[in-house]
Amino acid sequence: MLENYDKAAAYSNLIKVAASSRTTAVAGAIAGIMRQNSSAKVQAVGAGAINQAVKAIAIAHRYLLQDGIYIIFVPSFVDVKIGPEEKTAMSFLIEISDAPTQSN
Amino acid sequence: MLENYDKAAAYSNLIKVAASSRTTAVAGAIAGIMRQNSSAKVQAVGAGAINQAVKAIAIAHRYLLQDGIYIIFVPSFVDVKIGPEEKTAMSFLIEISDAPTQSN
Repeated sequence: MLENYDKAAAYSNLIKVAASSRTTAVAGAIAGIMRQNSSAKVQAVGAGAINQAVKAIAIAHRYLLQDGIYIIFVPSFVDVKIGPEEKTAMSFLIEISDAPTQSN
Repeated sequence: MLENYDKAAAYSNLIKVAASSRTTAVAGAIAGIMRQNSSAKVQAVGAGAINQAVKAIAIAHRYLLQDGIYIIFVPSFVDVKIGPEEKTAMSFLIEISDAPTQSN
């Protein structure tokens, strides 16, 4: 049922992440989108997928910082349809901030 | 071993989240800190805890938006000591952005 979530499938600026997604692959996809666009959206359903998504965003943050791009993100809940079922997904809106602040 | 992670313990501006933390309680703690400070830090170890942390941040985002406060966050990896063990935690730096952008 979650086959479509199996890899980080990037179309337009939406990236769907599964529990089985590789964080570095997702991070690369995020970084690629952010280098071309000013925003990206990452969607994940379930604790395992959200875990991978957050790790991928942290890695992408690191990648892009090397290029002087500082990304920030805003989480929200969205309803998505997976097959016949409606589920609540976490959606992460990723944006570029031109005001780098203290990091740890 | 993870007792100290059992509830959202807020001291200074650091909030530790466990898999068993209630998202609304953590969200309330985040919102409380953000109303007083310009930043907060949320730490979580493991997929379950990261899941709760991200949901809590999304809820806090919603709470604070009602007060006209727009929060964003930046994830990173940190090494933490839990008892004798060293673990990699996700650290979420939460900040106020004064540039509200498109949300979904």
